Amino acid sequence: MLDLKIMVQKYGGTSVGTADRIKAVAERIKRYTEKGFSVVVVVSAMGKTTDELIALASQLTRNPSGREMDMLLSTGEQVSISLLAMALHEIGIDAISYTGSQIRVLTDGNFSRAKIESISTDRIVKSLREKKVVIVAGFQGVDDEENITTLGRGGSDTSAVALAAVLGTRDCEIYTDVNGVYTADPRIIAQPAKLKEISYDEMLELARLGAAVLHSRSVEFAKKYNVRLHVRSSFNYEEGTIVMPKEEMMEKFVISGVTAKRDEAKITIRDIPDKPGIAARLFTLMGENRVYVNMIVQSTGKDNRASISLTVLKSDLDKALKLCETMRKDLGASSVESKVDIAIVSAVGVGMLSSYGVAGKIFQVLSEHNVNIEMISTSEIGISCVIDDMYAELAQKALHKIFIESEQK
Amino acid sequence: MLDLKIMVQKYGGTSVGTADRIKAVAERIKRYTEKGFSVVVVVSAMGKTTDELIALASQLTRNPSGREMDMLLSTGEQVSISLLAMALHEIGIDAISYTGSQIRVLTDGNFSRAKIESISTDRIVKSLREKKVVIVAGFQGVDDEENITTLGRGGSDTSAVALAAVLGTRDCEIYTDVNGVYTADPRIIAQPAKLKEISYDEMLELARLGAAVLHSRSVEFAKKYNVRLHVRSSFNYEEGTIVMPKEEMMEKFVISGVTAKRDEAKITIRDIPDKPGIAARLFTLMGENRVYVNMIVQSTGKDNRASISLTVLKSDLDKALKLCETMRKDLGASSVESKVDIAIVSAVGVGMLSSYGVAGKIFQVLSEHNVNIEMISTSEIGISCVIDDMYAELAQKALHKIFIESEQK
Repeated sequence: MLDLKIMVQKYGGTSVGTADRIKAVAERIKRYTEKGFSVVVVVSAMGKTTDELIALASQLTRNPSGREMDMLLSTGEQVSISLLAMALHEIGIDAISYTGSQIRVLTDGNFSRAKIESISTDRIVKSLREKKVVIVAGFQGVDDEENITTLGRGGSDTSAVALAAVLGTRDCEIYTDVNGVYTADPRIIAQPAKLKEISYDEMLELARLGAAVLHSRSVEFAKKYNVRLHVRSSFNYEEGTIVMPKEEMMEKFVISGVTAKRDEAKITIRDIPDKPGIAARLFTLMGENRVYVNMIVQSTGKDNRASISLTVLKSDLDKALKLCETMRKDLGASSVESKVDIAIVSAVGVGMLSSYGVAGKIFQVLSEHNVNIEMISTSEIGISCVIDDMYAELAQKALHKIFIESEQK
Repeated sequence: MLDLKIMVQKYGGTSVGTADRIKAVAERIKRYTEKGFSVVVVVSAMGKTTDELIALASQLTRNPSGREMDMLLSTGEQVSISLLAMALHEIGIDAISYTGSQIRVLTDGNFSRAKIESISTDRIVKSLREKKVVIVAGFQGVDDEENITTLGRGGSDTSAVALAAVLGTRDCEIYTDVNGVYTADPRIIAQPAKLKEISYDEMLELARLGAAVLHSRSVEFAKKYNVRLHVRSSFNYEEGTIVMPKEEMMEKFVISGVTAKRDEAKITIRDIPDKPGIAARLFTLMGENRVYVNMIVQSTGKDNRASISLTVLKSDLDKALKLCETMRKDLGASSVESKVDIAIVSAVGVGMLSSYGVAGKIFQVLSEHNVNIEMISTSEIGISCVIDDMYAELAQKALHKIFIESEQK
């Protein structure tokens, strides 16, 4: 493939949401072919198609079989690829569409969250050599028994990254309806900065902590295969944000983004006799019951009794509370409390690694604004604070101002 | 497969047009499983899905590639099979859906009108032995390069017949929105009789001459593989009409159906020097230009000059007239005339073979009603007359009364 200049592009649902949008995407692809690129395009289902199919299924059953759900949902991408091929033909560009099955996107058999195991490049490369634009249905594959599988949330991004990896190119553009990755949610911060570059790890932290531009799985995949993701808008020709190895980044901010996650609730188990392994037991219990625990903090109080606080998705709160209550009895703890109106405000940046006192500065800024910090958790490149939800906007604004707006001056 | 009592059922678009309809179909299938049948179900796309997909494509191109159109349209059936599987699961019936690709419905590479070459029964039989209802996407297959193909009009019926053939069963039910095959169009004849049985050849004649219940290809297929087609409604549990070999029929009417075809126009080329091979040349020319000629009648007039009349689809009339004009010049004929307001009224029945004077009786009946016959063509089991379109209803009523209503008394 060394003689081909391959560009992988992925277009999300809004980018192909209408016939006119599909035509616009075709025109964009044409520009790349004119520049000599061999273009491989991954498309999602049009606009709200997937939601409509799910609604149709829900009229028939509350508990659809994974296999049949994947059979159903994979049609959305198949519609998009054929329409995009037609739009390209119409403007004189040779193109051919392929389902996941046709290019052997082999996955494991976990319906609705399958993992890609391999992709055959034979047919793609043959079509590229025939000067065809290759259009691939994202989000889907087949298991070793030819059952259609889907990759779960962010699946089409993952398809695109996987294709870039197997085709040996680092160029992968992810087209969406925003111009790139911003330093904050534009609904909160009036003029957030668009990042030119961001590292995989920062992007993963941002995704985990509430920024919705990319799903973490595709970023992990890109990191693993060293693929640069150019996140940009299909509605204009502006440069977006390139997600890349931090070693290759030209500029590194101490903090590249501020986020708030507002879909979690906090649970506190008080006065647990302090014995080793309690946090581990709690995690295991939650995991077995498919409750995703995000933050967990343990503190020791008087009389060797500890408190454990954790956050779970609000949608899992009832289930999690029941499990914690069981734990409380087992452990002889005094009470289980919960709080729903919380926000997890986070600051993320690779620059933290080499800057001292970032955490202290964050706590100070929040304190100056009378924001009480209820839980703190830190990673190498991120600091998260649980605060009362009413301060979520204020806290983001204050942190953004101190760390980002001041640095840009 | 000898130990399995296999029943193939095909449900058309209206039969699976809504979630409630799909549930009703699931209940029907359940009854068959309770009777010990191993059920193989072929489904069409829901309601108007195919039309909607075509409309979507037409927003992008006037001349879609066959391959991409088949890629697009095949999604309709894929949606139906998954939903029907879910509906069966919901009422406790194990079921599994398969695309054409998954059960290797191999076709030739003629997109949008592909012909089935083979079907693998391995996976179907395996699933049937596991006590699963097998749901197959009709209308679709794959060529030997894994491109998705579709079978054209009536394709799902053809899929069902092919499955019955390869599975070695003669039992194939075709569910539709009418109760069976009638002796006439109920929009014209107030109380047409429902036929209990009809022969393949009669059904083919009826299909060719305007009755829309079954497409001729599926009937030809059924005849070739000796599969009995039970045409019936999915909206009730009445017996329908069984299309079968005439040797097996219990009762044979002289005439089993009266039809009118009103979408054709007549062309007459006058005063052609009468040389051999003119009709052949005309047919060849039309064929090369993809104009379907239905009836063709040649008559010799005075001075050894002949006239040729033929009927073509109204939608092909302009093209056909241009071709006839070319022929006129080549042959030195005097004129080309056309008439759009015609109807082809036909009577069809295997009983004609053994009854004398049926043709004469038909002409007499029409004459008694002052209906002028402009062209006549006969086959072994059918007689067609071109008449002025204004008499189409009258002619059908008169023929139905004489041949069918009187016989039933």
